[in-house]
Amino acid sequence: MKPPIILINYKAYENSYGERGYEISRKIEKVSKEYGVPVIVTVPATMIYKLSKETELIVYAQHVDGLEHGAKTGSILPEMVKDAGGKGSLLNHSERRIRLDEIHDAVIRMRKIGLESVVCVDRYELVYSMGILKPDAILIEPPELIGSGVAVSKAKPEVITKAVDEIKKVPGVYLVAGAGITSGEDVYKAVELGADGIGVASAVMRAKEPERVVAEFINQALKALEKRS
Amino acid sequence: MKPPIILINYKAYENSYGERGYEISRKIEKVSKEYGVPVIVTVPATMIYKLSKETELIVYAQHVDGLEHGAKTGSILPEMVKDAGGKGSLLNHSERRIRLDEIHDAVIRMRKIGLESVVCVDRYELVYSMGILKPDAILIEPPELIGSGVAVSKAKPEVITKAVDEIKKVPGVYLVAGAGITSGEDVYKAVELGADGIGVASAVMRAKEPERVVAEFINQALKALEKRS
Amino acid sequence: MKPPIILINYKAYENSYGERGYEISRKIEKVSKEYGVPVIVTVPATMIYKLSKETELIVYAQHVDGLEHGAKTGSILPEMVKDAGGKGSLLNHSERRIRLDEIHDAVIRMRKIGLESVVCVDRYELVYSMGILKPDAILIEPPELIGSGVAVSKAKPEVITKAVDEIKKVPGVYLVAGAGITSGEDVYKAVELGADGIGVASAVMRAKEPERVVAEFINQALKALEKRS
Amino acid sequence: MKPPIILINYKAYENSYGERGYEISRKIEKVSKEYGVPVIVTVPATMIYKLSKETELIVYAQHVDGLEHGAKTGSILPEMVKDAGGKGSLLNHSERRIRLDEIHDAVIRMRKIGLESVVCVDRYELVYSMGILKPDAILIEPPELIGSGVAVSKAKPEVITKAVDEIKKVPGVYLVAGAGITSGEDVYKAVELGADGIGVASAVMRAKEPERVVAEFINQALKALEKRS
Repeated sequence: MKPPIILINYKAYENSYGERGYEISRKIEKVSKEYGVPVIVTVPATMIYKLSKETELIVYAQHVDGLEHGAKTGSILPEMVKDAGGKGSLLNHSERRIRLDEIHDAVIRMRKIGLESVVCVDRYELVYSMGILKPDAILIEPPELIGSGVAVSKAKPEVITKAVDEIKKVPGVYLVAGAGITSGEDVYKAVELGADGIGVASAVMRAKEPERVVAEFINQALKALEKRS
Repeated sequence: MKPPIILINYKAYENSYGERGYEISRKIEKVSKEYGVPVIVTVPATMIYKLSKETELIVYAQHVDGLEHGAKTGSILPEMVKDAGGKGSLLNHSERRIRLDEIHDAVIRMRKIGLESVVCVDRYELVYSMGILKPDAILIEPPELIGSGVAVSKAKPEVITKAVDEIKKVPGVYLVAGAGITSGEDVYKAVELGADGIGVASAVMRAKEPERVVAEFINQALKALEKRS
Repeated sequence: MKPPIILINYKAYENSYGERGYEISRKIEKVSKEYGVPVIVTVPATMIYKLSKETELIVYAQHVDGLEHGAKTGSILPEMVKDAGGKGSLLNHSERRIRLDEIHDAVIRMRKIGLESVVCVDRYELVYSMGILKPDAILIEPPELIGSGVAVSKAKPEVITKAVDEIKKVPGVYLVAGAGITSGEDVYKAVELGADGIGVASAVMRAKEPERVVAEFINQALKALEKRS
Repeated sequence: MKPPIILINYKAYENSYGERGYEISRKIEKVSKEYGVPVIVTVPATMIYKLSKETELIVYAQHVDGLEHGAKTGSILPEMVKDAGGKGSLLNHSERRIRLDEIHDAVIRMRKIGLESVVCVDRYELVYSMGILKPDAILIEPPELIGSGVAVSKAKPEVITKAVDEIKKVPGVYLVAGAGITSGEDVYKAVELGADGIGVASAVMRAKEPERVVAEFINQALKALEKRS
């Protein structure tokens, strides 16, 4: 994982799986290759195998249970994600929150088997507490802006700058910003403020031309990174 | 779905996925074909696609979320299971319990798209309440016997007979018995008591010779069915 | 418990506890006595003791855990509610949903020690499934109307009539209707449609003159009952 | 709050409420006064009012919901605990775990209205993450030792010493040790290792002579504190 981090959360839309999920993945893959920038897609568990096998995208689960093997009906263990070809997982998304001890268990088990972990938080005050667990990245998303079309980087830039201050206390952990990001300008702003990348969902999944949107996001993230350095 | 129902819950054991999960599935499939008795395997979500594609087993999910499409990170919708090749799902397993309204939502959505649903309960007193929702089957498992090696059909035969009485009030819904079943005799007893089939997990998943165990289970279930008719 | 059932859910408003909670309770009590109609108030657990001791209202908890005594930090057992003077409890309110087995456990334990139970459901299709557990009453509330000011009896009268049909299959269980009820007319309509009473929250708790509102509700409920008989 | 912190968790035993809860509270209060050492009792929500009014114990809730006032049926807000006379609350007990954002919300709201907060953790690796939220104290309890009769201070002294190291990074937050503590020696050891006090439940609640046990605990805690200084 290295900046710019472009993370696309497929969630559970009509085109997050099946033929349409495959199709949009191909489009994202094409842009990713053109720019030479890896793109992380967090997909439904049922799609990890196929998308890992048939695309060069960095395929993540949307959630894993940091449990030991055993009688755990309905659980998805890190080992299952890895076996299916997945490279990592989101943890603690606002639509699938878990407890701190569960996050800790999962991060440890994932690291051990070489999976990347991206832990979501809803406020900058928790970035350091989560960062101490040493996931690969923290994704900060004020829940009230998720899916709103109002970008965190514009509406609440201080959330990003404060989160960036917090993440500096834990070297080796990246900070990704999300919630409401829809335009290249939103992306530029987020990275300019210090984020190592961005997380989006509907902006890509519901776009008429997802490849154009992803290209613009990558482009602006690269530009902002360059300006920062 | 028709008796004898043989349901094998893969849970999250070391051999529930990956190469070993594939291997045990092949063995179960072989026995299923020999006897001409379909076998239901409830597998980790990451395995549905591969096992549906490469075996003739009846592949189920271990849990689904009966939700509408949308911003539901980490959820597995019935449509995703179907798209991956799955034929149904467990609901409300004691290791993944959900609320009655969630069960109802899921059963409705599953029926609509042609997925089978097997709803778990822990006591006969709830069989009718769950049966009213019209899933394809109810799987009754006293939790204290799950994984115990002490079969419900021997230790608590009255749980099965009372559940059988309850299920008769909702024609068209099968009754499957589970918990602690390890021998062919346990299976025979369960079906003799009126169950339409049996649910097992560790007895097969942790067996040295799973094909022998499954063969014995099918054999005894058929014998008991024949005796009953 | 007998019709008309008037149930006021205190929820967690600023005036649900403390001096203001005590004050509004006194007002409700006064009206209840005037009309000779008992009123059920479901109050925060911390208020059960005081309100049971100092008023003649029928004091309920808003939730109980149907658990055995033991190491259950943070749980409120039926025995604790009874000891504090409570006469019953809501179960499965849409703001505090629990599973069917938990509802069953709670109803059994409550009945055993003489506490009344009112189980909430969000749809008529679940009325019978819940009714089988034999609580004292079922409170049906379409969640989208809760707190809306749009009464279930006006916006969705068929929810009440269908729920009434369902409840008839389990003699001895009352049906209470709730969600959006704000006027005496809403109450009249609900009881006219066959409900044994009504459940309200904000309509009373946020009223300028709660005593006037409660009086009107009781009045209209009595009128509708009389018309029905 | 100041060392030695003696915290007795009433949980949900037969004598945690009612006449017997009142009786044991009187006994604990007597010892507390004799030694001039305040004792914190975490009691069922229904008992806060009575025990706050009739004893000089430091009465805590076992759990609070850090929510805004409103439509939150079944929730116990910090304001309700305070109104009933409570002085604080446990948060995140292993029998009632909550998420990190919920802990943060609760700690903030409690501090604002002058309630003390004691956040439980199950491992030393999370002490700092929780400490950053600035509760009044962290209570560390390895869950496998809770109620075991095998004291954390003897079986896993390193859990306490490492937790003590972690808590030093957040000045102003106390560290309390718990799980399996049954003898005065266990208490002495815990405080000697650096804990600011101890948390117990069954050792007192199920004792034949709770006053003798509490006296011994206070005595040994004082001795260890003196030795340390």
